[in-house]
Amino acid sequence: MLPLNISAYIIPGTDAHLSEYIAPRDSRLTFMTGFTGSAGTAVVTRSKAALWTDSRYWLQAERQLDCNWELQQSYSVGNIAEWLIAQVPLGEVIGFDPFLFSLQTQENYMLNLMSSNRSLAPVSENLVDQVWKDRPAVSPENLIRLPDRVILRSWQTKVELIRSQMRDNPYKPTALLLSALDETAWLFNLRGNDIPYNPFFYSYTLLTLDQIWLFVHTHRVTEELRRYLNASCVDSLCVQLKSYDSVSENIESYVSQIGVKVWIGTEYTNYALYQLITPQDKLLTSSYSPVLMTKAVKDETEQRILREAHVRDAVAVMQLLLWLEKSVPGGKETELTAANYVNTCRSKQNDNRGPSFETISASGPNAALAHYSPTNETDRKLTPTEMFLLDSGGQYLDGTTDITRTVHWGVPTALQKEAFTRVLMGNIEISRTVFPTRTRGVNIEMLGRRALWEVGLNYGHGTGHGVGNYFGVHEWPVGFQSNNIPFTAGMFTSIEPGYYKENDFGIRIEDVAVIVPYQTQYGNHFLTFDTVSLVPYDRKLIDVSLLSAEQIQWLNNYYQKIRTVVGPELDKQGLSEENEWMLRNTEPFPAPGSSSSNCSSSLTLLLLALAFTLHHSRII
Amino acid sequence: MLPLNISAYIIPGTDAHLSEYIAPRDSRLTFMTGFTGSAGTAVVTRSKAALWTDSRYWLQAERQLDCNWELQQSYSVGNIAEWLIAQVPLGEVIGFDPFLFSLQTQENYMLNLMSSNRSLAPVSENLVDQVWKDRPAVSPENLIRLPDRVILRSWQTKVELIRSQMRDNPYKPTALLLSALDETAWLFNLRGNDIPYNPFFYSYTLLTLDQIWLFVHTHRVTEELRRYLNASCVDSLCVQLKSYDSVSENIESYVSQIGVKVWIGTEYTNYALYQLITPQDKLLTSSYSPVLMTKAVKDETEQRILREAHVRDAVAVMQLLLWLEKSVPGGKETELTAANYVNTCRSKQNDNRGPSFETISASGPNAALAHYSPTNETDRKLTPTEMFLLDSGGQYLDGTTDITRTVHWGVPTALQKEAFTRVLMGNIEISRTVFPTRTRGVNIEMLGRRALWEVGLNYGHGTGHGVGNYFGVHEWPVGFQSNNIPFTAGMFTSIEPGYYKENDFGIRIEDVAVIVPYQTQYGNHFLTFDTVSLVPYDRKLIDVSLLSAEQIQWLNNYYQKIRTVVGPELDKQGLSEENEWMLRNTEPFPAPGSSSSNCSSSLTLLLLALAFTLHHSRII
Repeated sequence: MLPLNISAYIIPGTDAHLSEYIAPRDSRLTFMTGFTGSAGTAVVTRSKAALWTDSRYWLQAERQLDCNWELQQSYSVGNIAEWLIAQVPLGEVIGFDPFLFSLQTQENYMLNLMSSNRSLAPVSENLVDQVWKDRPAVSPENLIRLPDRVILRSWQTKVELIRSQMRDNPYKPTALLLSALDETAWLFNLRGNDIPYNPFFYSYTLLTLDQIWLFVHTHRVTEELRRYLNASCVDSLCVQLKSYDSVSENIESYVSQIGVKVWIGTEYTNYALYQLITPQDKLLTSSYSPVLMTKAVKDETEQRILREAHVRDAVAVMQLLLWLEKSVPGGKETELTAANYVNTCRSKQNDNRGPSFETISASGPNAALAHYSPTNETDRKLTPTEMFLLDSGGQYLDGTTDITRTVHWGVPTALQKEAFTRVLMGNIEISRTVFPTRTRGVNIEMLGRRALWEVGLNYGHGTGHGVGNYFGVHEWPVGFQSNNIPFTAGMFTSIEPGYYKENDFGIRIEDVAVIVPYQTQYGNHFLTFDTVSLVPYDRKLIDVSLLSAEQIQWLNNYYQKIRTVVGPELDKQGLSEENEWMLRNTEPFPAPGSSSSNCSSSLTLLLLALAFTLHHSRII
Repeated sequence: MLPLNISAYIIPGTDAHLSEYIAPRDSRLTFMTGFTGSAGTAVVTRSKAALWTDSRYWLQAERQLDCNWELQQSYSVGNIAEWLIAQVPLGEVIGFDPFLFSLQTQENYMLNLMSSNRSLAPVSENLVDQVWKDRPAVSPENLIRLPDRVILRSWQTKVELIRSQMRDNPYKPTALLLSALDETAWLFNLRGNDIPYNPFFYSYTLLTLDQIWLFVHTHRVTEELRRYLNASCVDSLCVQLKSYDSVSENIESYVSQIGVKVWIGTEYTNYALYQLITPQDKLLTSSYSPVLMTKAVKDETEQRILREAHVRDAVAVMQLLLWLEKSVPGGKETELTAANYVNTCRSKQNDNRGPSFETISASGPNAALAHYSPTNETDRKLTPTEMFLLDSGGQYLDGTTDITRTVHWGVPTALQKEAFTRVLMGNIEISRTVFPTRTRGVNIEMLGRRALWEVGLNYGHGTGHGVGNYFGVHEWPVGFQSNNIPFTAGMFTSIEPGYYKENDFGIRIEDVAVIVPYQTQYGNHFLTFDTVSLVPYDRKLIDVSLLSAEQIQWLNNYYQKIRTVVGPELDKQGLSEENEWMLRNTEPFPAPGSSSSNCSSSLTLLLLALAFTLHHSRII
């Protein structure tokens, strides 16, 4: 920092593609701080070092940071900027790696520092990498192409589809720059293995109206793949392979031409590449690229196979739940054995490619940390006296899954039962709601919280995120966050309300659902959710008296669907004990209206009395 | 435009304070186009002229524009920019009056034109004013101060309160610029008469830590007011009166000092004044000024008197509804006579200062236009065969009111009854919902739509807006829009779902409610709404079988409150017929559960049968 004349350096926890999950070689934040949580930003000044992370990770960060680091708890660019203003003298410079900031992030820091007379400067070489001696190398594994059976649209079809959107755009872009890793992977129906749990590979694409430049580590592209990509020509449907590291110079030279205009999505383009596209009339921005917008709506095949992956996934989760019911009383099972068991069950399902994220297996107070994953040090025994939360998912060639179930093997407390029921009510209220097409998730997500709010409870995380077809388990921009795009038919999202009582227990109920058309009485263009995760909820934790008639009806329909759809798969796999377990746990709940059942029992009693009386009076 | 070398000129429908309602001298859009709607933007190029407005006004605009004007229907900066790109040749300049653009608006046009190679330039003199020969003058009326009985905080207290917020701000502003008309009026407890229905006066304030500069038309400030404002000194609690037209030069000279920093709210500061505050380290921005944020939460007195104003306002609306019930069958009443009647009723209430906006009195198909107000040409007879919608409000010294009731004097159709009931369900669901403090209106407003969505209905306007204490009837930034601030206790907002069937009928049910703390079972810091508009809904239009038990209970509680609160006021005013009408219309609805009533009738029948049988068998 001294030779560069920088007074502070910002270290974000992302990579050059602004990925949510990153490869070990991009874990600069962990290398610097020791902190391994998935969200955080560090700042180093000449005399201090501080880390910001969100409430999920405060405890973990306290444990992982040594005394050189201050832990800061209000995690926002505004708060980091305030801290910087307090630490950095007037007139001095704050540095950052422009490959690790989105356009948005850079602007955000700028706005917050603007009136403080401290300046923000990109530093071309990453300062952490300069001291990171044994930084892991890029994975040497080859890229793979998806088999035809999971594909409806060839890469050529997709390229033409995106080009037609470029032509239709009134600002007449001549090129589209794809920076997010799933953009390039989606466009070419390719996958890789560079990031744990995420089948991504380092890449950029510059798609022009008549050329395709794919920036990858070219030695990882086999001969067969080169043929698949038409990599030996330069026509409009030939993929020209270029070195991953040459992306900057190639963009610079493209932009230097007259009459070109490059379209970028601002949320996933890093500041370094954005800066190359000058002057501004060569730039066209939207929040998300047309690839991300198109990918958000699954095609017919993607919808079908993603549903199918969820059926096999349900089998694995049912196997786990049955096994836990039987094994936990034995006293030998722990969070780790449960996580291993479900991972093993999934691995036996067709087309499984491992878990889609690190399994969250949390018992008792551990589950109150919404994103806890067990380690050898923290591993907790499972017992019938504590609640257990399992949030896990699988990667399958045909789809990515993500499901959370919370169970109790003993006698839940009244609060546990009430909170669980209200979390379930939240899940049901979102799932059964009818809404006009293009409604935003953020405008309906309160339905997931309302039953909790009524009694003064709430949860501190989001309510759901998109999922992919053998892609990221958090597939943005679909979901319930404020920067997510409006819902249309064919999108998949998780629905996952929860409740967490510190040092006591945690509840989350998470299903994946697809958005489908709904035929209303008077209007058209209305939608609802169709749940594709197919595993019953713990009956012991449901207080039916809190549910409305509509909620019970939804639940019974859902359970009927589990029987109809997962039953045959359990049969096919010869899992008869699991089938019985499933049938036991999907018994319909009695129709509501305790008054009417009270009424019918009164009637019965009265009829009995009448019969008795009449009998004794010898009329009958 | 020719001498200025401008190819297009943008004419927005606002004033230099970015007011929603404007004075006649600011109605440049109407002067140019003939269109009188409250929302619109015109653009004039060298060969074309176009007007954009939203769907509420398309019909009206068609009627009012002559053939020189094109009506454009997609009203957004993005669409206007697209049109400009199509009309204005490459490299040419688009002009605008920087006093009529907010910082936000300017940025928005910039972003949309940025990559098109057309530039956007402020033009210092307004081009419309140059051709507007008989432009109305500024009102000559004096400003008035509010009486002490409607004030808890003196202007001195408010000034110190805002200064303490300036001192607490980590960016250390030295001055605050107030541009919105209600900011200055609120700070000094003053009112004026410059804008129809809005007690505002042209003004800016520059509040520094030790001085107060009030920019007004100084000849409108009486000697008494000068004494009230300490206008003859220069201390920190003396208001220095400066000419309204000198605001730019005074800001320029203030900013030229070393070490100053001016805080502005970006939503209500015009681009002309913003531009004067340079370099950027002399500027501090937030969306809304601390005055707007503070004003949004009413103090104890403001809450009490705003509730009181609503009680007197309810009397006027009840007088109207009773009178219509009796008069409409006579066949002589029209939309205009109804509007006049309610305005007259309000004018007789204590402290009334006229209507708070142009009364919307709409019968049958006219009500399907959400913001229709009757004229002599459109005036429609009121009959028992059509629904009638009245949206009206009053200005009172102690508060501003806004209420909508929809009624039917004959037999409503099944759809009318269902739609009305579902609109009412929306109103109730918002009103009774419990939510954590700082929840945003936009995140709960779907509750106003959900019952409609279920059957495929919806409405095309917002769900509510803040109201003031003798201020604007739309008092932002409180409300259910996406740019509104989070709810906290003490804010007032309207709640106004609706349904509109083109060429047939329109329904809206609007109440004002105050946000109050709610004691939940488990948590603190939860809020709910307490409705302060106190007029019953048309019973004939309510299908009780659609309501949930909770909705019926809310309705019965609300009706009980009307009896308790408005009853005594009707008595006091000697309105016994209105009191009887009120009692008739606030009869409690039977508790729900048709099953339990079926059950008790079965029991009754059975008991009768039993008695009969036993009687005949001579046991009894």
